Amino acid sequence: MKNKKRLNIAIIGLGNIGSYLYQYLRTNKKQLFKKNNIVPHVIYVSAKNKSKKRSVKIKKSMWLNNYMDATKNKKIDLIIELIGGSEGAAKKLVFSALKNKKHVVTANKALISKYGDKLSKIAEKNKVNLEFEAAVCGGVPIIRSIKESLIANNIKSVYGIFNGTSNYILSSMDKYNFSFKEALNKAKELGYSESNPKSDLNGSDVSSKLKILSSLCFNSYINHNIYVEGINEVDHIDIANANKLGYKIKLLGLSEIKNNKIIQRVHPCLVNKSSYIGSIDGVLNAVIINGSPVGQSIIQGEGAGPEPTTSALISDISSILRGNIKYPFSISDKERKRIKFDSIINQNFSAYIRLDVTDKHGVLSNITKIFANNKVSIKRLIQNPYKSKKFSSITIITHLAKDINLMKTLKQLKNKKFIITKPKLIRIENK
Amino acid sequence: MKNKKRLNIAIIGLGNIGSYLYQYLRTNKKQLFKKNNIVPHVIYVSAKNKSKKRSVKIKKSMWLNNYMDATKNKKIDLIIELIGGSEGAAKKLVFSALKNKKHVVTANKALISKYGDKLSKIAEKNKVNLEFEAAVCGGVPIIRSIKESLIANNIKSVYGIFNGTSNYILSSMDKYNFSFKEALNKAKELGYSESNPKSDLNGSDVSSKLKILSSLCFNSYINHNIYVEGINEVDHIDIANANKLGYKIKLLGLSEIKNNKIIQRVHPCLVNKSSYIGSIDGVLNAVIINGSPVGQSIIQGEGAGPEPTTSALISDISSILRGNIKYPFSISDKERKRIKFDSIINQNFSAYIRLDVTDKHGVLSNITKIFANNKVSIKRLIQNPYKSKKFSSITIITHLAKDINLMKTLKQLKNKKFIITKPKLIRIENK
Repeated sequence: MKNKKRLNIAIIGLGNIGSYLYQYLRTNKKQLFKKNNIVPHVIYVSAKNKSKKRSVKIKKSMWLNNYMDATKNKKIDLIIELIGGSEGAAKKLVFSALKNKKHVVTANKALISKYGDKLSKIAEKNKVNLEFEAAVCGGVPIIRSIKESLIANNIKSVYGIFNGTSNYILSSMDKYNFSFKEALNKAKELGYSESNPKSDLNGSDVSSKLKILSSLCFNSYINHNIYVEGINEVDHIDIANANKLGYKIKLLGLSEIKNNKIIQRVHPCLVNKSSYIGSIDGVLNAVIINGSPVGQSIIQGEGAGPEPTTSALISDISSILRGNIKYPFSISDKERKRIKFDSIINQNFSAYIRLDVTDKHGVLSNITKIFANNKVSIKRLIQNPYKSKKFSSITIITHLAKDINLMKTLKQLKNKKFIITKPKLIRIENK
Repeated sequence: MKNKKRLNIAIIGLGNIGSYLYQYLRTNKKQLFKKNNIVPHVIYVSAKNKSKKRSVKIKKSMWLNNYMDATKNKKIDLIIELIGGSEGAAKKLVFSALKNKKHVVTANKALISKYGDKLSKIAEKNKVNLEFEAAVCGGVPIIRSIKESLIANNIKSVYGIFNGTSNYILSSMDKYNFSFKEALNKAKELGYSESNPKSDLNGSDVSSKLKILSSLCFNSYINHNIYVEGINEVDHIDIANANKLGYKIKLLGLSEIKNNKIIQRVHPCLVNKSSYIGSIDGVLNAVIINGSPVGQSIIQGEGAGPEPTTSALISDISSILRGNIKYPFSISDKERKRIKFDSIINQNFSAYIRLDVTDKHGVLSNITKIFANNKVSIKRLIQNPYKSKKFSSITIITHLAKDINLMKTLKQLKNKKFIITKPKLIRIENK
């Protein structure tokens, strides 16, 4: 393929994903040429630990002395950033690459959600592509779908399950009766979770993805106002309670435009067992978009791992091969809107509340009074004594109430002597 | 927007979809320019009945004298064909347009599934785009997903629900206990079904879509070998029987590569009630793709109607606006494969069989003997007498058996005197 037109690529970062991608590009060069008319040709690589044992063999001559050399090397057309993290090496590399008029493909959600606006402006100015399909739900081609397939639509809301690890944990607590810790260990054992799963569990991974999606859906700058709550505090009693009431607990990311304001939130939700979103178990991801004229569009696939991520990276690389130059965020920087945000505290939710109380006279009357004072009305209340203890568990489902009032109720309950563990609240989503 | 770069468009065919698209392009010109940097400018239209009352007002000067004038008019860059049908005006228009180096966007599944190979060759030769996202499941952006988002993948199978009308009929027979006729009338009343729903009911609409999808998924020429069976013979007793056994009846299109051969089939299937595909009710469409490295990817959305179809048409138009030239079937004509087909008769299925019999001595023994002789073994058999009649209904679920043996069994049963209505067979898909 020496006489064919080529696009020269440098892969920076050779972990599981980088190695898989390198191998894929080696073995599928011909097929990609057939579809895009230009040969994707990896000429350089770089990684933190050059001597680390890898599944792929790489010629010595392909290693860059320093990863930053890629941004100035005239032979290189496209840099694929697979270092990760919003700061440090990844940030330095991508800013410099775009400034030096290299196309960039990245799987880095932390970087894009933090510096996407700035990076996009540089890419646009220099007429190069900045593509990040792999940054949001690898096996779910949602970025390209919003930017190209659903380009006609005025999108009003986007939501879904964007983190495979936390979804695996919640599903297996439900399915196999695992404790949180058992489920997390199983996720690690199966390679679903990173050695440090903090960002999976505390919601920040979903938060990054949701910010990127919102910005694309609403043609706006990235909005950093977002309510984020992870799954750290969900335990198997909540899962069992939800189950009895006909619900499942899912960590959702939800973003919508309401009265010309954006509301972004990430938190565990009780969803109907028989709903579509309730059926997404294990490491699957699903993204639901409501737009006009298309109506509701759903895309579902595997969320993470080298295979689906490579599928996403190759779609970005192919788009660049075909010369399909697009604005990184769908429209020109100067056309992107600044949308005001509305806080979650002004929204109305029905909620599941769980209280562990001492089993004394007057407790229930005390509790219901606090609810009433805060204008939160109770739809359902189930009180069960704990076996062989002087405690009771009270499960409450509320009617729709302002989030701020739900929070006040919780805060006031927390300080009461008859409350023996931190009260729990999980919002209900009728999706 | 007079000084901006423009792409001049002619819309041929102004039914519900053409009128909606015309209106959409008028009101969203600016937004589409923002995203694609070129203004989509409709300069001509044509339709069979010029004086028909339409929801849109069109200036007299925009009407072509003859629709075929569009193909020679030097001002026109892109022709949108919304006439429909595989022959006649649509065929003449699209062949001539591509020969005259006009880009073509069409929603015509009958035309593409029949003449797609020839048309694609002309488009490639003349370096123009032939796009047909709207031809397959309007609100499900499956064509662009296969060609671009999932470009990395070696796809082994594609299946799903591709016809909203038939799915609405089957779902509402199940949900509301409608007879077939009642359900069909309701579909017509709600505007889901065309005045002549023949191609929805006999499977030919799904067949056209499946041929197109197979060809894209497997990088092959369109293969016209396909087994097609519609939903005409499914009645509410079958629906009720399926329900009792934990199944739903769905009209599926299924295509796969097995031992380097292609198997394409369209027929009603019993699918597990709790499966994903079993949950797709009403007019929804869903497409499931299994590929490597992505794993399983699912896209779901509304199947038909002016709104989702316009969403699909606009994505095609935008791709052309951006100059994203692609082969219509993903790869060059000379690279497309000819894949041998394998007939459904060689495949193995578990099946639901329903027999109405006279309630006489020895009938069951007679029946089971026929099954045994044809190497079809019975997994489950339920015999119920019809109320106040001398007939019984026998429902059988078979173990896996060769399709040809199932057919022989059915044929032999059909001729028996104790069989009072035409025996029914519906294959079971464990998806």
